[in-house]
Amino acid sequence: MPTRWEFVQRLSAAAAGTWLGGRFDDRLLRVDGARLRGNLEALSAFGRPARGSFGDGVTRLGYSEADVQGREFVTGLMKSAGLGPRIDAAGNIFARRNGTDGSLPPILFGSHIDSVPNGGNFDGDLGSLSALAAIEALDAAGVATRHPLEMVVWAHEEGFAFGRGIACSRIVAGLIADGDMDVVWNGMTRGDAIRRIGGDPGRILDARRPKGAHHCYLELHIEQGGTLERSNTAIGVVEGIVAIDRHEALITGFANHAGTTPIAERQDAMLAAAHLTIAVRDAVTRAPGRQVGTVGQIELTPNSPNVIPGRARLSIELRDLSSQKLSGIMNDIRARAREIAASTRTTIEFATAMAAEAAVATPEVQQAIERAAGSLGLSAARLPSGAGHDAQNMALIGPMGMIFVPSVGGVSHSPKELTHWDDCARGADVLLRTILEMDRL
Amino acid sequence: MPTRWEFVQRLSAAAAGTWLGGRFDDRLLRVDGARLRGNLEALSAFGRPARGSFGDGVTRLGYSEADVQGREFVTGLMKSAGLGPRIDAAGNIFARRNGTDGSLPPILFGSHIDSVPNGGNFDGDLGSLSALAAIEALDAAGVATRHPLEMVVWAHEEGFAFGRGIACSRIVAGLIADGDMDVVWNGMTRGDAIRRIGGDPGRILDARRPKGAHHCYLELHIEQGGTLERSNTAIGVVEGIVAIDRHEALITGFANHAGTTPIAERQDAMLAAAHLTIAVRDAVTRAPGRQVGTVGQIELTPNSPNVIPGRARLSIELRDLSSQKLSGIMNDIRARAREIAASTRTTIEFATAMAAEAAVATPEVQQAIERAAGSLGLSAARLPSGAGHDAQNMALIGPMGMIFVPSVGGVSHSPKELTHWDDCARGADVLLRTILEMDRL
Repeated sequence: MPTRWEFVQRLSAAAAGTWLGGRFDDRLLRVDGARLRGNLEALSAFGRPARGSFGDGVTRLGYSEADVQGREFVTGLMKSAGLGPRIDAAGNIFARRNGTDGSLPPILFGSHIDSVPNGGNFDGDLGSLSALAAIEALDAAGVATRHPLEMVVWAHEEGFAFGRGIACSRIVAGLIADGDMDVVWNGMTRGDAIRRIGGDPGRILDARRPKGAHHCYLELHIEQGGTLERSNTAIGVVEGIVAIDRHEALITGFANHAGTTPIAERQDAMLAAAHLTIAVRDAVTRAPGRQVGTVGQIELTPNSPNVIPGRARLSIELRDLSSQKLSGIMNDIRARAREIAASTRTTIEFATAMAAEAAVATPEVQQAIERAAGSLGLSAARLPSGAGHDAQNMALIGPMGMIFVPSVGGVSHSPKELTHWDDCARGADVLLRTILEMDRL
Repeated sequence: MPTRWEFVQRLSAAAAGTWLGGRFDDRLLRVDGARLRGNLEALSAFGRPARGSFGDGVTRLGYSEADVQGREFVTGLMKSAGLGPRIDAAGNIFARRNGTDGSLPPILFGSHIDSVPNGGNFDGDLGSLSALAAIEALDAAGVATRHPLEMVVWAHEEGFAFGRGIACSRIVAGLIADGDMDVVWNGMTRGDAIRRIGGDPGRILDARRPKGAHHCYLELHIEQGGTLERSNTAIGVVEGIVAIDRHEALITGFANHAGTTPIAERQDAMLAAAHLTIAVRDAVTRAPGRQVGTVGQIELTPNSPNVIPGRARLSIELRDLSSQKLSGIMNDIRARAREIAASTRTTIEFATAMAAEAAVATPEVQQAIERAAGSLGLSAARLPSGAGHDAQNMALIGPMGMIFVPSVGGVSHSPKELTHWDDCARGADVLLRTILEMDRL
C-alpha cells in the first residue's frame, strides 16, 4: 500500500505524465529550459555594461550594488517558486524543500552569482538558476524526495574583494579566523560587506556547518576550458578540483644605464625573468598529464626603456590534482633558477604566495552523475577542474560532485564566455537527475 | 714685438709663475681642485634628500624649485668669478670671457645641472663647475686666449619633464617646432617652465645658433659606465655619442583562465615576451663590438597570477655608434620574432618609439683631448658614449668633443654614482688644457 504521501505523489506524477508501467519514471523529468534561459537573461541585467545586452558580460563583484540587486532578484525567483529563502550569517542564501524522511540530511546544490570584473554571463549564474530549475521541475511533476533538498547561492565566490578574500562557502566549511571580519577593503570592513548582503558578522561562527550536515553537495558549472567542446562531449564529470601552488619569484639584479653598461657587466633582472618564464613552461610540459603552469604577472623595477631592470617580481602558478606532482615541478623550476641566477649574475628567491589543496570529488557522486547523464542519453567524460569552486570548500565537510557543461572555445572570465542554451538545459537536467540518483543512496 | 695685450698677459703669467724660459708654459696650469670639490659639495644641497649629505644623490629635475635654486647658486659663482652670466630665450645660462682676437668665434664648454629623480652628485654638475674652474684657472694665471671663451650651463638636459621632452641645447641647435612651448606637463606649459628659469618662450627662436657660431664645443662628464675604471684609465676620449633605436613590441595572444586552459591551447603573450627578450640579447651579442640592447620595460595585460597574459608590450632599445649595425640587429630580432610568434601562437608587431642618430666627435677635437691628457701625463683611451649628452646637439652646429672621467663601478643615474675627487680634478685639468689646445687651431 502506498503511503498517503506516495499516493499524492503518484497522482501528481500521473498528471505530469511521468507515471509509466505502474511505477514513477523520473527519466521523463526535465527542467524547463526556456524558463532557465529567461532567468539567466533577466539576471544578466544586474552588472551589465552600459548599453549592453545579454552576452556582453557582467561586472557583479561580490558585495557591490549589482551583487546586492542580483541577489534580490534571485531571492524573488525563489519566493515565487514557493521557497522560503534565508540568509546565513556569512551572507549565503539557502532555501529548503522538505523530504519524506525527516531524519535524513539535505542534498545541497547550487553555485554563486558574483562575477569577476568583466566576467561572463554563465559562470556561477548557470549553476545557481539551474538549482532553482531543478526544484521547480520536481514541484511541477509533484515528485517528492526522501532527503530534504537545499538550494544555495554562495556569496563572494570569486573572492575579488578584500584582496582575493575569503569566499563565503569557506566560512560554512569552518575556514574562518579571528579578525577576518575586520579586514578593510575599499573603505569597508569585511563585516560591513557581509552585513550589506544581509549577513550577520556578529555571529559569523553560526554560519559554520559540521561534517555530515548534508548528504552531499552538487554543483553545475560551465567548464571554463575547451576539453568538452573539442571532444564533443555533453557532460563533464569532475574528478576533483586541482591543487593550486602560487609562488612569487623575486629576481634581484642591478639597475644601471642601458646605454653605458656593457653587456658583459649587466645584471639584468628582466633577462633572468625571461629565462625563468621559459623554465616554468619547460618544467610543466616535461611530464605527460593535464598539469598547467602560468607566469601571469610581472613587475619590473624601474621599468623604463633606458634602464637595465634591477628587480623583477613574477608570479608562478601551478595546478594539478596531485600536489606531489606540483612539488616535483617546483623543484625542477628551483634547480633551473639556480642556473639562471648564476648565468645572469642575479639572485632569485621564491616565496609561497598561496597553496590550495586539491579537492577530490566523491567517487559515488561521480558515478551518480555518470548514471544521470547515461539515463538522458548524454555523452559524459571525467576531467579535473582547473578552476576553483565553492565545491572545494564543501568537500571539506561532506561528499561532493560537480557537473560541467561545454564552454565555447574554452573562454572564461570574459564577456566572450558562452555556453549554448541546449547545453545549459542538459546540464540542469543532469543536475536534477543526479539529485534523484543521490536521493536513492 | 709683443702686442700690448701679450705684454699684459706675459706680466700676469710671470706673476703666476708660469713664464718659463722666455715663453709661457701652460703645462703648469691647473684648476683649483679643492675649490672645485667645495663647489660640487655646495651645489649638492639643492635637491638633496631630507637629512642627506653629499653623496646621497640629488633630485633636481629640470624646472623644479631645486633646479631654480641650483641655477641661482651657480650664477652667483659665475658672478663671483667676474663673469656676466646671461640666460638665453631657452633658459640656458651663458657667460663669456673675451679673447685676444675679436674676429674669432668662441670656444664653448659646459654641461648641465639638472638631474633625474634620485640622480647622482656628479652627472652634469662636474662638467658645469669644471667649466667655471677652467676659466678661474686662466684668470688666476692671467692667461689670455685668442678665441673668446664661453661657458654654458644647459637647461633640462635629462629631459625628464614633458614626457622626456626637449633638452634646451636642442633648441640652440635649432631643433624646435611650432607648438613646442604649448605642451603641458604637471599643470604648466613648456613655455611657463622656460619662463620659470628665466627664459623667454615668446622669442624662443632667438635661442638658435647658426653653424659656425662657435669654434668648438667641449664637455667634461663622468663616464656613466665602468670601462675607464676597469682598465685603470684616467681619461676617456669620446669617439661619439651612440645612435639609439628604441622600438616597442606589441605581442597579442589570448587572455584565458590559468587553471582551465590546457598548455597546448594557450596563446601566452608573456611566454612570447620571454623568448623575445632572449632573442634581443642573442641578436646584440652575436657580432663583436660595443653595441648594447635592453628590454627595460614590460607591461602585461591583464597582469594577474591566475590569467594567461593576453597582451604584452615591451621596449627594445639598441645603441651603437653605427646605425647600420643597429638595423642589422633589428632585422635579426624581427626574423626571430616571426618564429616566436608562430611557436607561441601570438602575433608580434613592432613600432619605432624613438630613433636618435649618432653624433661623431670631431677627430681634431679628439686629438686635442689626447694631447691635453698626454701633456698632463694622464692615460687616455677612446670610447663611445652610450648615454646621450648636450654635446650631441652641439655636434649639429659645429666641432664637438667630450672628455670622460671614471665612474666607480660604472654606476649612474643613482645616488651611488661616484667619481673620486682626484679624477674630477684631472678631468677639469684636461678640459682646461683642451681649451688651450683648441685655441691654437
